[in-house]
Amino acid sequence: MGAAAVAWEAGKPLVIEEVEVAPPQKNEVRVKILFTSLCHTDIYFWEAKGQTPVFRRILGHEAGGIVESVGEGVTELKPGDHVLPVFTGECRECPHCLSEESNMCDLLRINTDRGVMLHDGKARFSINGKPIYHFLGTSTFSEYTVVHVGCLAKINPEAPLDKVCVMSCGFSTGFGATVNVAKPKKGQTVAIFGLGAVGLAAAEGARVSGASRIIGVDLVSSRFELAKKFGVTDFVNPKDHDRPVQEVLVEMTNGGVDRSVECTGNIQAMISAFECVHDGWGVAILVGVPNKDDAFKTHPVNFLNERTLKGTFFGNYKPRTNLPSVVEKYMNKEIELEKFITHEVSFKDVNKAFEYMFKGESLRCIIRMDA
Amino acid sequence: MGAAAVAWEAGKPLVIEEVEVAPPQKNEVRVKILFTSLCHTDIYFWEAKGQTPVFRRILGHEAGGIVESVGEGVTELKPGDHVLPVFTGECRECPHCLSEESNMCDLLRINTDRGVMLHDGKARFSINGKPIYHFLGTSTFSEYTVVHVGCLAKINPEAPLDKVCVMSCGFSTGFGATVNVAKPKKGQTVAIFGLGAVGLAAAEGARVSGASRIIGVDLVSSRFELAKKFGVTDFVNPKDHDRPVQEVLVEMTNGGVDRSVECTGNIQAMISAFECVHDGWGVAILVGVPNKDDAFKTHPVNFLNERTLKGTFFGNYKPRTNLPSVVEKYMNKEIELEKFITHEVSFKDVNKAFEYMFKGESLRCIIRMDA
Repeated sequence: MGAAAVAWEAGKPLVIEEVEVAPPQKNEVRVKILFTSLCHTDIYFWEAKGQTPVFRRILGHEAGGIVESVGEGVTELKPGDHVLPVFTGECRECPHCLSEESNMCDLLRINTDRGVMLHDGKARFSINGKPIYHFLGTSTFSEYTVVHVGCLAKINPEAPLDKVCVMSCGFSTGFGATVNVAKPKKGQTVAIFGLGAVGLAAAEGARVSGASRIIGVDLVSSRFELAKKFGVTDFVNPKDHDRPVQEVLVEMTNGGVDRSVECTGNIQAMISAFECVHDGWGVAILVGVPNKDDAFKTHPVNFLNERTLKGTFFGNYKPRTNLPSVVEKYMNKEIELEKFITHEVSFKDVNKAFEYMFKGESLRCIIRMDA
Repeated sequence: MGAAAVAWEAGKPLVIEEVEVAPPQKNEVRVKILFTSLCHTDIYFWEAKGQTPVFRRILGHEAGGIVESVGEGVTELKPGDHVLPVFTGECRECPHCLSEESNMCDLLRINTDRGVMLHDGKARFSINGKPIYHFLGTSTFSEYTVVHVGCLAKINPEAPLDKVCVMSCGFSTGFGATVNVAKPKKGQTVAIFGLGAVGLAAAEGARVSGASRIIGVDLVSSRFELAKKFGVTDFVNPKDHDRPVQEVLVEMTNGGVDRSVECTGNIQAMISAFECVHDGWGVAILVGVPNKDDAFKTHPVNFLNERTLKGTFFGNYKPRTNLPSVVEKYMNKEIELEKFITHEVSFKDVNKAFEYMFKGESLRCIIRMDA
């Protein structure tokens, strides 16, 4: 039915293949993907180091597309609607969906090991009858994909999909961590740990919130130049100091930053991000995903002196309910997305996007499905 | 000028002595104490284990009194005003006082080692010219004491000082931790670790907030009977289980409590209080003071699953600005204080209050200065 980039084995280049994409079943939607982009999470599960690998698989989870057909029970979407597929969903019925605070849906929460659809435990992709497995319920490296209706955000049809596709994962994760969770006040100081796409989206959130000082912390000093475009005003490389970076930040800010957002997943950076916030009111937000054996460790007095530590997932956005309004912020020119898009390739060159990311050259590389 | 209970040495019974109480200097107020009560913090610094002891000293920091005279620059208070002295202050000029969130005043923050007044570095108490040192800037085990104006909350003169005196420390610390920081919503489940006076005040905060279930956690099962009066509906003794108490709580509540408040200072209880809150929205609050070598340790994924951990100090109340309204809540019968007051002694029997607390018999023992 269409072309898809199949990951046949861990770490091997993707191969463009013609795949069958079965019709959407109950509560499912078949989507024609127009643009997708590559995120570190795709790379992580493609390398599959230390994991139970699920191959052959169609990767991809950051994308924009158009509804092609809908399955039984889908009333909210119809063919022609513009949508962003999201790696985590919103059933609107579980305690998390009913909570004002959580976006960790019990039914559709991210599941990195599941390669099949929830409805019948089967894959919708196949080649000569042989199933090809799904990834994060999205598998957007495919001209057509099938997604649970709860993992699709219906957006303004006038929004350019080649730009807003980056809002379906990385951008929203970082931006939401700042605006929904850290919530800096106008004039406050925000530290961002890790200046990749997620960290720079967190910085964009700080800029939009009116932060007066945005301090980037990264092990690669050359990233500061690019980061300035995202409102980052100061830069600290922990390697340039012979004491913990939190001490450097506390000194630079006369007592600590007002907010910090940790986007690396490195356990030492998490501890630094917490310990660098000001006593009395400082809030630190964890975004980056740690290794499974890591331990967060600090002296409890750091908490008792009225510091707050919170984690967030997908920027605390409920995908169906909240993403449409994030797209509107771009349409109203409150958010700048263009600066996140550093590369573009045609679908047949999908493996080039991997190369750009490995070289650390790209923030986001848009993959055009029609080219 | 008046009688005071002097702690001459660590761990030795207090001795009632006639002491001179010098007039208040700049920004100071001399207060006639009518009622005071004993708190664990008095005991801790009286025992002075592992500390640099500051003796001879007048202990006491939970009290109610009447302004006797004021020093230079004091315009907010006049003789006859009813006040609660507080162990931590509010200068109204530092970044903490100007922050909406913090109550950790730079100038008047709790200082357990200082035995003298800020203005001139001298004690106002003396016996035959020999200085007797202050404690927490309050030293309320004395008929007269001198306190910085920033450590006095002016309250409704109709409020009974023999009741509201307990709001000057323990009650507000626990109650504020719940209502100002944990902020449970109506119908939510709250776990309270430690059912002493502070923990029961935290439970009172949960009751007033409309919590539907209040789970008390304590190593002494007999405390559950008393705790029922404070709205505690369920009880868990960690000793009754051969697995971590957080697992018991998660199971009891189908995924975790909505809020928890840790009032013991035990590091394992702190970790349990954090790990027992529900993912997606759970908030854990640390109140109890840890040992100086303790390390708080948890898997960072516990944060990333959208849990929050915050510490609080004196229930996040700014003493001058906020305490008067806490007293009003008692006057409006929103708060019940009588149940916290289990004993009463006359000043000459002040050492009996220590005995009651050692035996674990009392929540609060009111010491009447006029008897």
